[in-house]
Amino acid sequence: MPDREPLLAVAFDAYGTLFDVYSIGALAERFYPGKGEAIAQVWRDKQIEYTRLRTMSNRYEDFWRCTRDALKFVDRKLLLGMGAEQEQALLDEYRRLKPFNENSRALERLRAMGLKLAILSNGNPEMLQTAVAAAGIGAHFDHLLSVDAVRKFKTAPEAYQLAPDAFGCPPHRILFASSNGWDIAGATWFGFTTFWVNRSAQPQEELVAPHAEGRSLDDLVRFAAARAP
Amino acid sequence: MPDREPLLAVAFDAYGTLFDVYSIGALAERFYPGKGEAIAQVWRDKQIEYTRLRTMSNRYEDFWRCTRDALKFVDRKLLLGMGAEQEQALLDEYRRLKPFNENSRALERLRAMGLKLAILSNGNPEMLQTAVAAAGIGAHFDHLLSVDAVRKFKTAPEAYQLAPDAFGCPPHRILFASSNGWDIAGATWFGFTTFWVNRSAQPQEELVAPHAEGRSLDDLVRFAAARAP
Repeated sequence: MPDREPLLAVAFDAYGTLFDVYSIGALAERFYPGKGEAIAQVWRDKQIEYTRLRTMSNRYEDFWRCTRDALKFVDRKLLLGMGAEQEQALLDEYRRLKPFNENSRALERLRAMGLKLAILSNGNPEMLQTAVAAAGIGAHFDHLLSVDAVRKFKTAPEAYQLAPDAFGCPPHRILFASSNGWDIAGATWFGFTTFWVNRSAQPQEELVAPHAEGRSLDDLVRFAAARAP
Repeated sequence: MPDREPLLAVAFDAYGTLFDVYSIGALAERFYPGKGEAIAQVWRDKQIEYTRLRTMSNRYEDFWRCTRDALKFVDRKLLLGMGAEQEQALLDEYRRLKPFNENSRALERLRAMGLKLAILSNGNPEMLQTAVAAAGIGAHFDHLLSVDAVRKFKTAPEAYQLAPDAFGCPPHRILFASSNGWDIAGATWFGFTTFWVNRSAQPQEELVAPHAEGRSLDDLVRFAAARAP
């Protein structure tokens, strides 16, 4: 941590951090037995790849478009012969993911410490609103920040800058939380205080170390409690 | 193709397009039986991921550094317990890859058409010089262009711009060739005439279509012959 000024806010990544993407693979497995895990993995990798290529090449299209395009690629790559019905069902599943169990309790405890809360996500505003409403966690957040406002995906600095702008404070007084190692690296480079919610015990990226790491939002609450106002 | 003005030059991607990366997996398989393919795949994916994250976050480090860091990640991800000797051997293998069989014949035929030739690669200058010398194909090229000059990796437009600057002509009069679907998409967006050397019959990315596609440099020669000066 750059210094010991107290934290003022927490900004959360959405997909994989607040929302559990597990159900995607389960539904894909029902449609295509034996291929569910591969479908979920390739879909996710390709979706993120498209956000990066479109950012580097200045060819922004929103996250929903990247998600749909990635699924079309998966269909051809894994020779699924996907019909319109399966495609729609998988996309609908992505719209209404379940939150992780500990979310509401953790978010309440962070608010009780006097911290402001936001989501800062690659997802476009419609996706975020739908997901938050479906999960019933909207009331906890002061801001739903979408990179769509700057037309660059994470890890572009312009995307992370949305949080300091919304909270009106410098990045090191914002705790940024993500389950994605690459997102945590980008956020640490940017200047946030960072907490890696390493839910699946991945090895750390060879980029830059986060300020702290744990396995769930409960671990993040413990970290924040020592640095809250 | 934007118009039918004749082509003036050809710019080649290096790794996977001119240089065969197959031997990496074979060597890894000797060191870690049953894991060679996974090592080669994760190493390549992570190497490219690091180039993109460092470009998006304005944290450039050169391709050799990204390659080494990616191998360290692979070691921890796949629980290899890699020793210094194996690490060095794998990195050395990356320095001296074999060229594809058809390379010299194809490059000679392109030069005979009056086309100028270049390599335009993420690799840093030392890597490119070593690889070209080891493969004995240096005499064919007018330019060895490394993105290191602009400190951004492909698909940043600044990286592709090195070729029009070197050849002194607009991008649509340069034929850009790569075996990587994402590289071809970035190059097409940039404005090159593009030929996808789709050596392993991958599905096309859901981004933008190349101007032409084939399976080897021999196919590229046929395409170029119809559009040479």
